[in-house]
Amino acid sequence: MSSQLITNIAQLVAVPPGPVSGDTFSHPPIIESAALLIENGTIAWLGKQQDAPTLTDAAETIDAKGGTVVPGLIDCHTHVVHAGSRENEFVQRIQGASYIEILEAGGGIKNSVRMLREATEDDLVAQARPRIERMMQWGVTTLEAKSGYGLSHEDELKTLRAIKRLNDDLSIEIVGTYLGAHTIPPEFDGKPDAYLDRMLDRDFLQTIVDEGLAEFADVFCERGAFNLDQARRFLETCKDAGLTPKIHSEQITRTGATKMAAQLGAISADHLEFVNDEDIAALQQSGTIPVVLPGCSFFLGSPPAPARRLIDAGLPVALATDLNPGSCTVEPLPLIMSMACTMLKMTPLEALVACTANAAAALGRADKIGAIAVGHRADVLILDMPNVNQWAYRVGVNGVARTIKN
Amino acid sequence: MSSQLITNIAQLVAVPPGPVSGDTFSHPPIIESAALLIENGTIAWLGKQQDAPTLTDAAETIDAKGGTVVPGLIDCHTHVVHAGSRENEFVQRIQGASYIEILEAGGGIKNSVRMLREATEDDLVAQARPRIERMMQWGVTTLEAKSGYGLSHEDELKTLRAIKRLNDDLSIEIVGTYLGAHTIPPEFDGKPDAYLDRMLDRDFLQTIVDEGLAEFADVFCERGAFNLDQARRFLETCKDAGLTPKIHSEQITRTGATKMAAQLGAISADHLEFVNDEDIAALQQSGTIPVVLPGCSFFLGSPPAPARRLIDAGLPVALATDLNPGSCTVEPLPLIMSMACTMLKMTPLEALVACTANAAAALGRADKIGAIAVGHRADVLILDMPNVNQWAYRVGVNGVARTIKN
Repeated sequence: MSSQLITNIAQLVAVPPGPVSGDTFSHPPIIESAALLIENGTIAWLGKQQDAPTLTDAAETIDAKGGTVVPGLIDCHTHVVHAGSRENEFVQRIQGASYIEILEAGGGIKNSVRMLREATEDDLVAQARPRIERMMQWGVTTLEAKSGYGLSHEDELKTLRAIKRLNDDLSIEIVGTYLGAHTIPPEFDGKPDAYLDRMLDRDFLQTIVDEGLAEFADVFCERGAFNLDQARRFLETCKDAGLTPKIHSEQITRTGATKMAAQLGAISADHLEFVNDEDIAALQQSGTIPVVLPGCSFFLGSPPAPARRLIDAGLPVALATDLNPGSCTVEPLPLIMSMACTMLKMTPLEALVACTANAAAALGRADKIGAIAVGHRADVLILDMPNVNQWAYRVGVNGVARTIKN
Repeated sequence: MSSQLITNIAQLVAVPPGPVSGDTFSHPPIIESAALLIENGTIAWLGKQQDAPTLTDAAETIDAKGGTVVPGLIDCHTHVVHAGSRENEFVQRIQGASYIEILEAGGGIKNSVRMLREATEDDLVAQARPRIERMMQWGVTTLEAKSGYGLSHEDELKTLRAIKRLNDDLSIEIVGTYLGAHTIPPEFDGKPDAYLDRMLDRDFLQTIVDEGLAEFADVFCERGAFNLDQARRFLETCKDAGLTPKIHSEQITRTGATKMAAQLGAISADHLEFVNDEDIAALQQSGTIPVVLPGCSFFLGSPPAPARRLIDAGLPVALATDLNPGSCTVEPLPLIMSMACTMLKMTPLEALVACTANAAAALGRADKIGAIAVGHRADVLILDMPNVNQWAYRVGVNGVARTIKN
């Protein structure tokens, strides 16, 4: 049996298993002068250091040096596997073009589709690997990665297989999502339903499931992409095939997709910039996790989601980077936590819970990761900061002194 | 003679010496497939690689590997030397308190004053050194550092001497600014003029000048700090003693300090969130550099300065972090460049010019640094990015592959 005792912890933030809402969201338990025992990669004990169990000689002691210990971060919404970059559109937008104008003019996602189709699986792995390694340096121990720039059987499988290879190669868990309905590719221009027929082919979906390439299916329900009926059909068919629904909803306009997805049992509804009371009520009645992406609002200069309203409605809000080449290039999840504080008026503790327990819930893993609780996987970070509030407060500073994964 | 030839540069951004305004600000010359020759720490030649001069055997060749070369960054407004941190106020502000409410209730700057007075010069050096080292990793080769948390002869000298030691110890040029009029300390509560008498003592100012502790004098002209007449008196007296004026103006309310400082020949007017047309006209008629600090607006959630209006008025806008424990903790200057793009609608190239040539002008060094021009000091960065637009576009990603300083 391998065991490690982390000692000399100024603050141990004992985030409980997700989904976390209400008062616990804002005030998760914090143990000062704490210790944490890990046995065989699992959290075995936590408490005041003076009460720590006596160890056998074989145990390793890890000195947290008066730092803070928190759960490893979970980035539950990314497009980290993509080809090339779109800095030209970034400049165009600064000069006045809107995201939706660029998209409708055949730029935007479609540029990424063109570049991804030209790339090999090896190219995708080679381009994504340093991104993911940097994200890990900022404290991420689990991340979700979507396809959605392939938009053909071959190119979606290429992307999902690249994601699986990265999961196998790197010491981080990477969860795949099939985003076959990200946008309509040029060869199906004006024929969204024919495109969906193709991407919902039963054998194709079965390949994704059989190879273990994805757990989730996702759709971008928006003007210029898929309408409500198309989004519903996509998610229902994928669900039948064994892929749990997720959705990009109410990002640029209010479509009603959040309510539709909640009723369908989606595990998360992501973006939510334009949610209304009806959508919030639908989320309250479902177990669907609202995922808020402030980096996207920062990057596009568009209004952020009303995270405070969602939290005050008792919802277990999660946060993620949305890392992608068009609408948010932010790689460090702690920078998203800072944005959540300054742009969304979430406290540093709420931001932490949103990037751990609630992000785990958005990935169907709240019973295993995202918490500091006995029996949970020992994905924990030691921060070289004496209190947890400093983390989001120190914008752009990497506080991670050590990552303990599993 | 030592010489280095940087080869294999995809884009060499030949930022001209500052101050840079008008069309050159938005479109500085870019040489593709370039090389750059450095002799004895000075830029000796730049141009197309095919035209590069033949080198002696003693010359070192540096392979830029298809990256981009830009001038070293200059952070022309920081409070990097300070004691402790103020994450509690960050949380209070998220929960609804305003910056000025916290300041007027005796928090804010006054908390930092209390902590700085308790610290020794060694403490200040030890706390600031890792911050500055991180800033250097993000490409900063010159920075300004203000006093202003001491507010007594002894504590201001302690701060300025810590700044000088850091300048001597680290391979970065650090320029000191005497910010004696940052706020009114508790022992002079209600007696701002008596406080200014004290901090404008002729022998005290002479000590600052004789020891080479500062080149500039700075004042925070604002409700809760110093009014226009007090600010004028402070800057005039310091100017007579040999310290060039700078000012914190129009940050929270419009006071007219920008116009006053411009008429006084201030080298820069910083913040400018609430400038009006009259202030812009005053800047146009002076050589005063407008310094914009979007990190502060990001951190406080307050409206940013109208940088676009200033640029369109033909002014040579500079950018800086304003790094400080109360209103902006952002250390990476490239993250400020990203904020300038997303929040201020500056292009990546404008943001680069604002952090190099124009920042050099704000520090009276435009003839030596901030440009890639023959005869200028060879402070240059090699970015592992194929074009300069990627730098600000990739938010929170450190693109600096190598820093060549002098």
